[in-house]
Formats: sequence, structure tokens, C-alpha cells
Amino acid sequence: MAQFTVTFQPVGRSVKVAEQVTILEAAGAAGLPLHAACGGHGHCGKCAVRVISGASDPTPSESRLFTEEELAGGWRLACRTRVAGDISVDVPASALIVSHRIEVNGIGREVLIEPNIVKTALRLPAPTADDPRDDLTRIMDALDDDVRAPNSIRALRDLPSLLRRNSFHVTAVTAGRTLTSIEPGDTSEASYGISIDIGTTTVVVYLCHLPTGEVVSISSELNPQAQYGEDVISRLQLATSGPEGLARLHGSITQAIDRLIGQAADQAGIARDVIYEIAVVGNTCMSHLLLGLDPIGLVRLPFVPTFKGAQLVRASDLGIQIHPDGNVYVVPNIGGYVGADTVGVILASELDQSTGLQVAVDIGTNGEIVVAQDGELWACSTAAGPAFEGARISRGMRAATGAIDKVSLDGDVDCHVLGDVAPTGICGSGLVDAVAEMVRVGVVDESGRLRRQEDVNGVPEKVRRRIVENEAGLEFILASAEESGSGRPIAITARDIRESQLAKGAIYAGVDLLLQMLGRKPDEIDRLLLAGAFGNYIRRESAVAIGLVPALPPERIVSIGNAAGLGARLVLCSVSLRRRAEQFARRVHHIELSEQDSFYDRFADAMALRPLPRPA
Amino acid sequence: MAQFTVTFQPVGRSVKVAEQVTILEAAGAAGLPLHAACGGHGHCGKCAVRVISGASDPTPSESRLFTEEELAGGWRLACRTRVAGDISVDVPASALIVSHRIEVNGIGREVLIEPNIVKTALRLPAPTADDPRDDLTRIMDALDDDVRAPNSIRALRDLPSLLRRNSFHVTAVTAGRTLTSIEPGDTSEASYGISIDIGTTTVVVYLCHLPTGEVVSISSELNPQAQYGEDVISRLQLATSGPEGLARLHGSITQAIDRLIGQAADQAGIARDVIYEIAVVGNTCMSHLLLGLDPIGLVRLPFVPTFKGAQLVRASDLGIQIHPDGNVYVVPNIGGYVGADTVGVILASELDQSTGLQVAVDIGTNGEIVVAQDGELWACSTAAGPAFEGARISRGMRAATGAIDKVSLDGDVDCHVLGDVAPTGICGSGLVDAVAEMVRVGVVDESGRLRRQEDVNGVPEKVRRRIVENEAGLEFILASAEESGSGRPIAITARDIRESQLAKGAIYAGVDLLLQMLGRKPDEIDRLLLAGAFGNYIRRESAVAIGLVPALPPERIVSIGNAAGLGARLVLCSVSLRRRAEQFARRVHHIELSEQDSFYDRFADAMALRPLPRPA
Repeated sequence: MAQFTVTFQPVGRSVKVAEQVTILEAAGAAGLPLHAACGGHGHCGKCAVRVISGASDPTPSESRLFTEEELAGGWRLACRTRVAGDISVDVPASALIVSHRIEVNGIGREVLIEPNIVKTALRLPAPTADDPRDDLTRIMDALDDDVRAPNSIRALRDLPSLLRRNSFHVTAVTAGRTLTSIEPGDTSEASYGISIDIGTTTVVVYLCHLPTGEVVSISSELNPQAQYGEDVISRLQLATSGPEGLARLHGSITQAIDRLIGQAADQAGIARDVIYEIAVVGNTCMSHLLLGLDPIGLVRLPFVPTFKGAQLVRASDLGIQIHPDGNVYVVPNIGGYVGADTVGVILASELDQSTGLQVAVDIGTNGEIVVAQDGELWACSTAAGPAFEGARISRGMRAATGAIDKVSLDGDVDCHVLGDVAPTGICGSGLVDAVAEMVRVGVVDESGRLRRQEDVNGVPEKVRRRIVENEAGLEFILASAEESGSGRPIAITARDIRESQLAKGAIYAGVDLLLQMLGRKPDEIDRLLLAGAFGNYIRRESAVAIGLVPALPPERIVSIGNAAGLGARLVLCSVSLRRRAEQFARRVHHIELSEQDSFYDRFADAMALRPLPRPA
Repeated sequence: MAQFTVTFQPVGRSVKVAEQVTILEAAGAAGLPLHAACGGHGHCGKCAVRVISGASDPTPSESRLFTEEELAGGWRLACRTRVAGDISVDVPASALIVSHRIEVNGIGREVLIEPNIVKTALRLPAPTADDPRDDLTRIMDALDDDVRAPNSIRALRDLPSLLRRNSFHVTAVTAGRTLTSIEPGDTSEASYGISIDIGTTTVVVYLCHLPTGEVVSISSELNPQAQYGEDVISRLQLATSGPEGLARLHGSITQAIDRLIGQAADQAGIARDVIYEIAVVGNTCMSHLLLGLDPIGLVRLPFVPTFKGAQLVRASDLGIQIHPDGNVYVVPNIGGYVGADTVGVILASELDQSTGLQVAVDIGTNGEIVVAQDGELWACSTAAGPAFEGARISRGMRAATGAIDKVSLDGDVDCHVLGDVAPTGICGSGLVDAVAEMVRVGVVDESGRLRRQEDVNGVPEKVRRRIVENEAGLEFILASAEESGSGRPIAITARDIRESQLAKGAIYAGVDLLLQMLGRKPDEIDRLLLAGAFGNYIRRESAVAIGLVPALPPERIVSIGNAAGLGARLVLCSVSLRRRAEQFARRVHHIELSEQDSFYDRFADAMALRPLPRPA
């Protein structure tokens, strides 16, 4: 059989194929897979290409789908055009199936972009006496066989006039393989989603371009629920005090999200109605409050959530304005205090498919710990408190401009400040650094006691002089009133040190206890992942020095950034990862630390400011 | 192995079974299948029975599910209680699986009641440290494996307090195997649905008790869209004139339905929120207007509906108030002018599974015809006009109190009146009778011409004198002003005869043409079904005499009443029948009469008032 050459532009790739092979098949053979939503039946127009040389006569489907002018210009369907000689075609970017890369800090990984929301541009033939299919069937026939008809009447409301005004050139929007709406012309590129990380302290909204998985803008603000209570427990008390308390917490978070989405859309210069879906992570309490669900089961033992599995609700039912048919996907929770945010961390770090012994620690207002042994998962939550997010620390702040994020006491007090300005406070990584350095030079002892100037020996004078005593007690000045950007000194108080000890002790004890349940030891950890914004800035040496994490060689400790938020973006951009998260969330062993008798002893031991574990 | 006798009360049936068999299994063996929603795992409490004698000690699940008092009274789970001696149990009606009978006029048939809406009473164990399942999982575990979690957050809103306030005794409502809501205590009997027949002229609402399929009340009114146009064409013109016209037609029908549901619920003494689903039939135009869909494709050839397949929409989206999560199921259409009402007729009469040659004629404002040949289906719609519904007839009225429904001209004019009152008008069956009798005695000739008194011979004088001539032309007096209940004479005018001829000619020509396309002849019809309210009252002999239907022996003609409305009730009470309707609706051959060249010749021929077909 005769062989001919097919050349694809603008990439300039060629392939030799037998006569009668379609351009669609040839493109596949050349490693340039093209979209063919209708299965290569000439219905969807998704594989439209421009033949530069060697064009054949148009087939009936092509005559229906293209204007005279377009046909003369060489426009054909790759699925209908068969090779009958050497041929050269120009492939528009929209016809190409591409896979994209999503970065996890510290762990590079490739993710196939396959969002739940798919937009397919269609060029449909107009009805004739021989083809009197109803409008909806005409569209369904052009889509993949597994796409279901709309379950909302809204999609059909304007359909007849929409089709006729646009010469039957429209874009079909599907969500979860269900047709949800039809838009005029080709709008397939205008497809956006939102991923949200609802922290107890901060809410972050990412606007993502769904076809590429790229983040196009980010907005964030403090969780407005904080006005009703800084921590989860006080919000639970308000939420379970009556319908009004619950409504206030529910309303404040949904309004914040709606506001942040508006900001993110404005920044990106897009309309809200091309945002089709939202994916959310947060701890179990945040998930309940977002959905307005009574968290009564979470306030007493056994901690019983109202739901654990993934939820899909209409955004409009939550008062969040995106596309009118847009949904909010809430990532599943693991248990009472181990929530969807931890599912996000596991998904981003692929702990569910990991080998060896791996541990992830997500340090936020609570500290969640996951231990993976050859992919089997154990998780717990520790009431670490918000010290490492800057809360309850006298001059604490978040890792933002003006925050001291690194401290060295080598000969003198040397602070690194974010944003190249005078310091205004100290963030979590700065706090860990400061405490580690104070212990190293001997200003603080292992039990956490801050020494008086006169009790300190062998410490450079410039450092020793920073210990001061005032009416509130002892403190260590990192920046004097003159050095500070706010005119107030920035100091670490004795109480700040105690808060860091409580936070780090809870985290270490949690790791230690989970490992012990598996009969494993801290030094057997193959990889320790630090998640959370804090994890991005922390000096691994300092975290080891104060016994926040087990004493491991630095190369085994990896910062992975805001893995919970990334998890939300992954489930937004990939239905496979969404299914995977739903599956592993069910099989994580959830350990309730407060039910483990040995926890409090471990906790007390783990308060010591020194590398841990202690030698046997 | 030892054998023991299990006796079931109050039915008094016994069965001998081996030791260790469960009461649930014994009941099945005795032909008394019991509910076991959880699969016999002791979770759902659906199979609760009272052991009269021979009770064994309660198992842990029973101790959890029943109070001390109930246990002492002999309450046990049939799935947990094993036979260890002779035993006698009392089976409450709620535990029994029963099948019910739904009547089709003229065709008796049994329908297994398996509604889309299922309510399951549950007695769940309360959470413990060993069983900290979340509330939703606790419920899902007690339901059948194929039941899906709710897709609306509403169901979860009050769940935690609802469960705890009711000692975990609740009723789960599922719609289409999806959990939709949870109610306190056992509400399984309070389960209702609505079936609706939207005629062009009349809207009828049936309130059905879902567990038994029984109609508990009926309400109806004239279709309020009639104020905007008597027939489908004039309503289509208004609907396609702009959004306002469409909104007016949509609003008037949805408001009427909401009003009628309120009336039906009041009559039955039930609340609207125990109505969980609505099933609707109507012609294609009525379906579009109900859903507020632009019917632009229906106004010109090729007649293209916006949708044909079944639709499921939230009742609240249509402004119809039932249970907040209640849906409206719209039965699929067949084509531009053959709608869901015809699907209802086919389903009620089982034409899709029939043998031989069967024909159904549904006479309403339009006339729809279905021909079934060994279960293969052809259907068309004829613009028969509303003559047989009493419209466009000078003294026409519906088949209600005061309507002349039967006429005999044997020696004198003898009219039968519905409701034993003085006549106020004439209904469809009376019109057919009157015309048939006038032709028989010679007052009207076969061409439809009403003769003058002086041209009539061999007719009893009392009949002949009823022919009068006034300024409007000739007419035949059925009841004089004195005999009439309204003080105005009731007469058949020359124009009334012409209207009947147009209506019956269109129907006959449609039947004739469909048969000819199959190569069959009218006298080969094995069974002819007359559907519609009209079909209930019509005298078969008269219908044959004027050539409304083919000349068949009377035993082959069967009246089946409002089969379209019954079809709506069948899909409400049986998901199998719902799926069956969706399947056959797709395979009906839809014939557009206006595209058939020979139709108009046949129509002209079929206007003759005589038995048809004409001898060759």
C-alpha cells in the first residue's frame, strides 16, 4: 500500500503513514494527540486543522461545519480527512491535547491535567428534514458517549435561540461528565476554577486556569471567624451554642470566600461566571462551618463529625457567586480533628503511594501528623497551638514583610527580616531559630528557662546584654526600639519560650507516639516532610536542635510548602486525584491522641529544648 | 438436624425450618418476605417483629436498638433471631413487603410498587469510643449498599441534633437511590407523590400514597393557559413572541399546579412536605412550557423540540411547593407533536410489549395515534381539534354534570344527561352519538349536509320537527329552551357537524396512513384502544358508524380511560416502568403527517360520515 508523508506545523514534525489513514490517526502516530470529543465522528469540530498543501475535497460533515471561505482557506476536520498524497497541515494550539506540570516545593511531580470541568467547542450541523433531532440530542451526540444530559433545566432555557443565533457553533460545559451549560461560540479557553485553603487563622484563594492548571491570581485574608475565637475550640463552642452562633460563623467564612474570589477574578481580569468550580480543604471544623453544619459531635468524646466523605454543593447555596451552576467540592475529612487539609498534604506529597517510612508534619494553628509505612497511613492531630503562626507570641506575626524569619547569635544578634525593611515582629521560623540559638549559646537552658544576665557565662557580651528584666519578667531583645520598624522593641519573653515548647512538644510527642504504635523508631524515618507556610522558611537545623522534629540528617528533611492548599488545587485540576483522595481518606488509620494513655508522658518529655529522641 | 415450627401472626401461616435458621429466612420460606434494608445485618431495624412465644435472649444489636421495655415485650430483629425451638411471632404490617394492583380501565394489570422515593425507618446504635463513625456514615451503613450519599447539604444541616434528640431512631428518605433527607422517628408511611396530566384544555392532579400506589385525592381545573389561546398553535405563537410571553405561559401553568397540589393535599389532610416527587405527562408543547423552555423549534418544519428525553428538575425551581428537595420528573417526549402523554398511553396499555396489530387513539385537544405491530411502535399526532372535548361546538361542554352524553333518535329524540339534571350542553360522546343517529335516520347525509325538514323522508315526525332554520342557518334541536337547564335550546348546528367531521377525519386518516406505511389494513387490527376521558363515554357503535375509527367488531374496541394520566402515575410508583418508558420512547417511529404527501387526500376521503374503510 502506498505510503505518504504528513507534516505538522508549526511544530515541524513529520510522519509516514499508509494511504487512507486519517490526519487524526497520523497526528497520534506523530506524538501529537488531538482532541476528538465526539470520538472522531465529524460531529464536534474539535479537531479542526488547516491544510496548507495537499487538501482533498471537503466531506459532507466538513461542508456543514465550515463556511465556504473557511473551506477555501484549507480548514478541514482531522478525523474526516484521509491521506491520499503528501500533505502538510497547520495544527492550532486548541486542537492539541497537552499535559502540564504542577510543582510541589521540594518534590517535583508531573500531574496530568484532567479537570472535572471540561469545555468543548462544537460546530454542529443545523437541523434538516432528514435530521430533525431535538436540540439537546444534537449536542449530546457530539459529546463523548459517557457524558450525561443536564440535571438542571437552566442549561436548556436559552438553548434553541442560542444555537440558532450562533449558527450552531457553541461550547458545551460539562462538570463530572454531566452537561451543565451551553455557551455561544468557542469559549473553551475561558475556563477557571478556585482552590481554597481555609486555615483556622488564614484563608487563601487560588484562581486556576483549568485547561493548564496554572494559578493566575491569589488572594488571602485572615479568617474572619477569628473575631469569634482564635482557636477551633472556642469556635466550636459558639457554633454549638445555638443556630445564631452557627449562622454567624458560617456567614463570615462564606462571605470572606465570596469577597476573595471577587478580588482574585478582578486581579486576573476575568468575570466570575467563567469560574465553574471550587475545591476546598480545611480542618474538619472548618469544613463543617463552611457548609453550615452543626458540629455538635465534635465537642465531646467520641469525636464524631456530621460527615467525613467528600461533599459537592451548589456554590449559590452557600451564597458564593461563581457560574450559576457552579459547585463547591469539599475534600473528605479523615476524622474528628484530622481534616481535608491533611488529605491535601497526603495527596500533594503522594504519601499514599510512598515506600519506606515517611512522615509529614503540617504546622498551622493545629499540627497534623501523618506517618506512612509503605503507603499505609496513620494520622493524628495535636493541639500544637498557633505559636508557629505568630499567634500568642508577644511580638509574633505571620511570615510577611517586616517579619524576622532567621536569627543568629554568632558574636552578635543578627536578624534576617523579610522584605528588606526594619523589623516589626517575628514569625514562626524566626521564633524556632531564636529559641534554638538561645539554647545553643546558653541564654536559655534545656528546660526552657531564660537565664538572667549574671547567670550567663561564655556568651558574647553583645548577646548577653540583650537579656533584660522589666516588670513583666525576663526577656531577650532581638531588636531595640530604635532598630524596630514600629518604635517598640522586639523581644522573646519567657512566656514566648514556654509557648514554643508546648507547640513543639505536642508535635514531637505525636510523631513519637504514632511511630511507637507501628513499632518503629524516629531515626528510622526515611523522609520527613514539613508542610505549611512555616515549613517553607524554617531552618531544618534549628527544628532539629530544639526537638521540634526528630534528629535526622538534614537531607532527610524536606520542606514542601503549603501542601494542603496544593492538594485543593490538585483535586480541582484532576478527577483521578480527586477519586484517589476519596479512596485513601477512607483507609487512613485515625488515632485520637487524647485516648492514648502514654501521650501525656511523652508530651511532658518532649518539652525539653534539645535534639530528640533522648538517648536510651 | 432438629426441625422446628415457626408460626407467623396475624396471618396464621407456619413453616418448618432447621435449627439456627433466622426468622427473616423462615419468613421468606413461608412466603412472607420482610424488609431488610441493611441486608440482614442488624443495622436498620426494618425487620422488627414481636416474638409471642419462644423468645431467645437479645443479641447485642437488639439490646442497642430496643428499650428494656420493648425487649421484655418480645421485640426482636427477624434477621438476628435464630430458631432454637418452636416459635411464634407477630409480624407488623410495616415489616412486610407487599405488591399492589393498579387498574387500567378495560385492561386489568398488576404493577409491582417500587417507587423512586423510598422511606426506611432506622434504629441506629449511638456512637461509642469503639464505634466513632460519623453521623452520615452511620446512616449510610444501615441502608442498602447501592444507596448514594446526599448531593445536597440540606439533608445534613440538622443531622447531629436530629439523631441525638430522637435516640438515633429516624427515617431515611431516598430518591432514585440517593439519600435526600432524614426525618425524626418512623415516618415511613407518610410518603406521597403527585402525578399530573397537563392537557391543552384541562390539568388533572392525582395525589398518590407511594407505598401502596393508591390515589388518595384528585383535583383539576381548566388549563389557565387557555386564556392566551385555545390551541397549542396560538400558545406557541405567544411563547415564541419574546421572553414575556413565555414567562406568562410558564407562570400560569406552574401556579395552577401549585394550587391544585394544595387542594389535593388539603382534601387528603396531609402536609405538602410529605409529598416527595411529581411525575408529569403532557404533549411536547406543554412539557416545554412547564419547564419554561423556549419552544421556537416547534413552530416551523422540521419540528425540533428543545429536548426529548426525560427531565428531572427541582420542584422549587418551578415555584411548586412540595418537600424542599422534591423533584419533578417529566416523562420523555417522542417528537415535535407526539409527547409524554402518548408515552403514558403506551405504558399504561403495554403496547410496547404487545403482540399482533394493536392501535391506540388518544382523543383530546389533539389526537395522538399509536400503532403497535408485535411491540414495534409508530406514532403520529393529528390536528383533530378540540371538538370532542366540547370546544368549538356551539353548545359543547366537557363530560360533566348537565352534559348530554348519549343520544338516540328511535321514534323520538332521547338524550341521556350526566348527573340526572336538565341538560346544559353536549359533550364529545354525545356529539358522536348525535351525528351517528342523525346520519342513521337520514337527517344528515354522508357528506355531512343537514337536510331541511321538507327534504327528509321516512323519519318519525317528532324527530323531523327538530330541524329548524334561523338566521344562522339550519340546526337540529336536541333540547328545547323549556327542556334545557339553561333556558336556551341545545342544538347541533351545521357548523358543529362540520367540526366533528374535521376531527374524526383527521383521526381516521392518521390511523389509515400509519397502517398503510406498515402494509397493513384497518380490518387486520386485533385490538383498538380508545384513550382519553372521551373514550370512557363513547358508544363504540357510533364511533364506527361515523367512521371515527375503523369498522371493527365491537369486542375488538376497548375504552381505557385516561391512560396518559395513568402513565404518569405508573412512572411515579415504579422505577422499572420509568426506565421502560425512557427506553421505548427513544425507539418509537415518529411520523410527521404533514410531510406525507398522501395524508391530505386520505383526510378528505375520511370526512365522509359512514363506516370506513370504504369498500375497494
